[in-house]
Amino acid sequence: MMKIAFFGLGNMGGPMAANLLKAGFEVNVFDLFPKAVEQLVALGATTADTPKDIVQDCDVVISMLPAGKHVRELYIGEDGLINYLNVGTLVIDSSTIDSATAQSVAAILANKQINFIDAPVSGGVAGATAGTLSFMTGGSLSSFNQAKPLLEVMGKNIFHAGEVGAGQVAKVCNNMLLSILMVGTSEALQLGVDNGLDPTVLSEIMSKSSGSNWTLDVYNPCPGVMPTSPASNEYQGGFMTDLMLKDLGLAMDTAVGSQSTTPLGALTRNLYSIHQKSGNGKKDFSSIFEQFSSK
Amino acid sequence: MMKIAFFGLGNMGGPMAANLLKAGFEVNVFDLFPKAVEQLVALGATTADTPKDIVQDCDVVISMLPAGKHVRELYIGEDGLINYLNVGTLVIDSSTIDSATAQSVAAILANKQINFIDAPVSGGVAGATAGTLSFMTGGSLSSFNQAKPLLEVMGKNIFHAGEVGAGQVAKVCNNMLLSILMVGTSEALQLGVDNGLDPTVLSEIMSKSSGSNWTLDVYNPCPGVMPTSPASNEYQGGFMTDLMLKDLGLAMDTAVGSQSTTPLGALTRNLYSIHQKSGNGKKDFSSIFEQFSSK
Amino acid sequence: MMKIAFFGLGNMGGPMAANLLKAGFEVNVFDLFPKAVEQLVALGATTADTPKDIVQDCDVVISMLPAGKHVRELYIGEDGLINYLNVGTLVIDSSTIDSATAQSVAAILANKQINFIDAPVSGGVAGATAGTLSFMTGGSLSSFNQAKPLLEVMGKNIFHAGEVGAGQVAKVCNNMLLSILMVGTSEALQLGVDNGLDPTVLSEIMSKSSGSNWTLDVYNPCPGVMPTSPASNEYQGGFMTDLMLKDLGLAMDTAVGSQSTTPLGALTRNLYSIHQKSGNGKKDFSSIFEQFSSK
Amino acid sequence: MMKIAFFGLGNMGGPMAANLLKAGFEVNVFDLFPKAVEQLVALGATTADTPKDIVQDCDVVISMLPAGKHVRELYIGEDGLINYLNVGTLVIDSSTIDSATAQSVAAILANKQINFIDAPVSGGVAGATAGTLSFMTGGSLSSFNQAKPLLEVMGKNIFHAGEVGAGQVAKVCNNMLLSILMVGTSEALQLGVDNGLDPTVLSEIMSKSSGSNWTLDVYNPCPGVMPTSPASNEYQGGFMTDLMLKDLGLAMDTAVGSQSTTPLGALTRNLYSIHQKSGNGKKDFSSIFEQFSSK
Repeated sequence: MMKIAFFGLGNMGGPMAANLLKAGFEVNVFDLFPKAVEQLVALGATTADTPKDIVQDCDVVISMLPAGKHVRELYIGEDGLINYLNVGTLVIDSSTIDSATAQSVAAILANKQINFIDAPVSGGVAGATAGTLSFMTGGSLSSFNQAKPLLEVMGKNIFHAGEVGAGQVAKVCNNMLLSILMVGTSEALQLGVDNGLDPTVLSEIMSKSSGSNWTLDVYNPCPGVMPTSPASNEYQGGFMTDLMLKDLGLAMDTAVGSQSTTPLGALTRNLYSIHQKSGNGKKDFSSIFEQFSSK
Repeated sequence: MMKIAFFGLGNMGGPMAANLLKAGFEVNVFDLFPKAVEQLVALGATTADTPKDIVQDCDVVISMLPAGKHVRELYIGEDGLINYLNVGTLVIDSSTIDSATAQSVAAILANKQINFIDAPVSGGVAGATAGTLSFMTGGSLSSFNQAKPLLEVMGKNIFHAGEVGAGQVAKVCNNMLLSILMVGTSEALQLGVDNGLDPTVLSEIMSKSSGSNWTLDVYNPCPGVMPTSPASNEYQGGFMTDLMLKDLGLAMDTAVGSQSTTPLGALTRNLYSIHQKSGNGKKDFSSIFEQFSSK
Repeated sequence: MMKIAFFGLGNMGGPMAANLLKAGFEVNVFDLFPKAVEQLVALGATTADTPKDIVQDCDVVISMLPAGKHVRELYIGEDGLINYLNVGTLVIDSSTIDSATAQSVAAILANKQINFIDAPVSGGVAGATAGTLSFMTGGSLSSFNQAKPLLEVMGKNIFHAGEVGAGQVAKVCNNMLLSILMVGTSEALQLGVDNGLDPTVLSEIMSKSSGSNWTLDVYNPCPGVMPTSPASNEYQGGFMTDLMLKDLGLAMDTAVGSQSTTPLGALTRNLYSIHQKSGNGKKDFSSIFEQFSSK
Repeated sequence: MMKIAFFGLGNMGGPMAANLLKAGFEVNVFDLFPKAVEQLVALGATTADTPKDIVQDCDVVISMLPAGKHVRELYIGEDGLINYLNVGTLVIDSSTIDSATAQSVAAILANKQINFIDAPVSGGVAGATAGTLSFMTGGSLSSFNQAKPLLEVMGKNIFHAGEVGAGQVAKVCNNMLLSILMVGTSEALQLGVDNGLDPTVLSEIMSKSSGSNWTLDVYNPCPGVMPTSPASNEYQGGFMTDLMLKDLGLAMDTAVGSQSTTPLGALTRNLYSIHQKSGNGKKDFSSIFEQFSSK
């Protein structure tokens, strides 16, 4: 039976680990918050006092951490897991971090024949809970194929974007584009409203025309157009402005590093920054609509 | 039998009138270019020397003209059609113009009990030829219902956006959003490519994720990803940069008039302006991708 | 003795007319608000009940009105001044309006041999009161020379930008640039503060370096750097956000009309629009700084 | 007599070292290009084969290197100068790098009681040659005071921005602002030209009004307005687009790191990126004007 070590039991990691348990895997969990650990233990997980005890005899390590420095620390920091993992262990890092960090951790682990794939997700807490996340992965094809059955337990769409780091790049591209779709859709809807159109009618027209996009079609930012979207629930739930801003920071670092041109992405980051500084960091990212509608 | 007068037989108007003829309508056509008229006459249209002769005894007038001033001139200018149309005539203006002009022409025609709807289209020359245009219309429900059977001969999706002018507003909103989708998609794809990703793989991932949008999914701006898109045909055909820039100018006029906030729309207009000034006005609007990919 | 008719006695027009009176001119004034008229009469102005009585026997008409439509109405509207002005009268319009309106009013007045110059101002209420306004004028050289002695009573810098309409163009260019300087300076100062710099030290450094500009050097947007700037007085006084936004709307109309490329101008308009919708329309335009500093 | 070790003899470092020699200092120089070293030796400099020999018995080290990694490598890399400098040595790094690198190098050198100030410059090759550079420095007041007499040999304005790293921050803020001034001025001038104004007249008007700024007043981007500016010399000489883009990359990294909001700075970086990709990297940065003027 495959043994999994799981690090990081937050809003995303917790339900992901729970889905692995439900599917019958043996999961040894770790988090700095005891309460998070307890919840998983109640579902059948085991735990231990230290990271090195957590990974003993495990075949796969999965991590879901806040930032690149935590990933580096866990695997290759002082007394890092690299010293305790067996040759051939598969490491799946689902944190959203910069691809350079993913690549450097992978390279160092490779020296000990430990296989690494980066596998950031999209789909939010709801997707993590329902097991319908999308995984965008980077790594060798063999590592990808090895990880796939596990990822399918936690998600629905499992993409192989390329070599190590490619999963992070794909996520950063997708989320930068997502933010542009959201802001553009908000502008277009409010422009219509300002000129007398009914936002529901306009949404329907554009959805069936060349303005069609994910934010317009399934996550409409205008209150009242879609009863179930965060916009119709005072922008609660969903994907927080703070998190979108973090991803857009990664996108900008990536763009500067590769000397890429991203005028709309850069502007969108700054609009979200203004939005956050107006006190909207905890609202769903579709609340950017309010920057255009308030009068 | 319904008699239709058709003004403006350009790249769009020509095939639209042809489809009406094919459907068996009696169509009296007018254009300043004799050759354009001849082509329609060859398909069965009738013609006359002057606009006032063209509209004699007609039930419906359809116009497809370049700009607001032409529409004003035709209907309410010196010796305009308003002097020759019967009470109860239906006017369908499919030109893309500002909604204020549409509203003022409609108001003046209403004094003579002539009914007006604005009905700008999307779908390009290909859609006009195939009879698959989208019509975004504004006007009273009764005028809309009267126009609908005719519009269905020339198009596939017939939307009623609201009162007179609403069709123009809906089109301007949709096309502004479309331009944002195109630029954002181009940036995101090239950011991926600059960081080692295959654009076809990245397109597939984002299309199935929250980055999904019309330009990515069916009109991909990166050469080679979709064999049939303009991008894979040296950006020939499709919807010219010059025309997108005209529509974005209308969008900006509309936004300033209604004191709306459209940061991405405004930036996109300026990026297309730079693109045009670099000599790309006649290329398909997806060629904006080259601003980000050239090195 | 030269007789002047003055229309529009608001925040700007009132003190301008007062300065003409102080300089000994005979000024006949008109405004829709009786109180505004009374104040000038108390300073020695004469008045009358109707515009046509105001301009009787006058040599020069000066107007300071809110928008293009008021200018058109006054001079060439129904029962407009054009019917009452003598051949050879000089019209000086100091309203900030679009250059096309200035040009069309001028052309119609020219048919009656009435000379027109557009002469919008900068310098605000303080400049109007102190008689230190800048005038940016458009018109024939002879009209400019005729107007100059009067303008020097109300202002300090009197510029001749070109033919009729050129004064409006110059103002719109200057104010668009001004708004860009203000936003750029605000961003740069806050970026320094966010990274530990003292804004006064940074201001001094940049003022003596290539970052030097009017907003940094004499109108610093960061509270506390300059004791006398609006920023150090809770952004009261100065030039209101609402008015800057009006000017930026004119700039955008001008840019779309001339197919010009103004990416920073367009973005700045939208940032001011966001700022206004957050409730800051009545604050000085340097308060845009708060969009970047609030946390 | 003070002994100076100087590393990096490129377009900037070469003339800076030459000015120290002219002022009578003993300068030991190093560069990877022998020809650069030879030129300084011809002016009286000494040299040696290895960095460690260069710094023997020196009191001050000055470095002018391309990027942060070179600075790190020189001072604290394998066999870095840290191993060879005496206690109390003053290190002046004039490279333009990120402030975080400056701070970390300074902190490590401080362990050996070696004093560090960051002292990036502005003024270009012309300023380096004429000894009129501006230095923006960060470090303790005592180190600043120690460095000042040397900096005054190479420059005219010597600013103390704050603690270590503050010089880099000040430079990045200034150059971001400079790029915004340049783009905004270019837009405003071309908007005037597009509407019939003479760019020289408009420049004069705005220079005396609230549009006044360094790029308009002394470095005008419109060809023909100032005979001596790069714009009137086919955009040769001056400060290259490539270098401005490098500085804007640093600005963006800084802004993302400090969660700052810089919408115009971000847009300007992207406009320069488009400009570079059109083949203008080697032209003076005022050539961005051509993006708006070409038709």
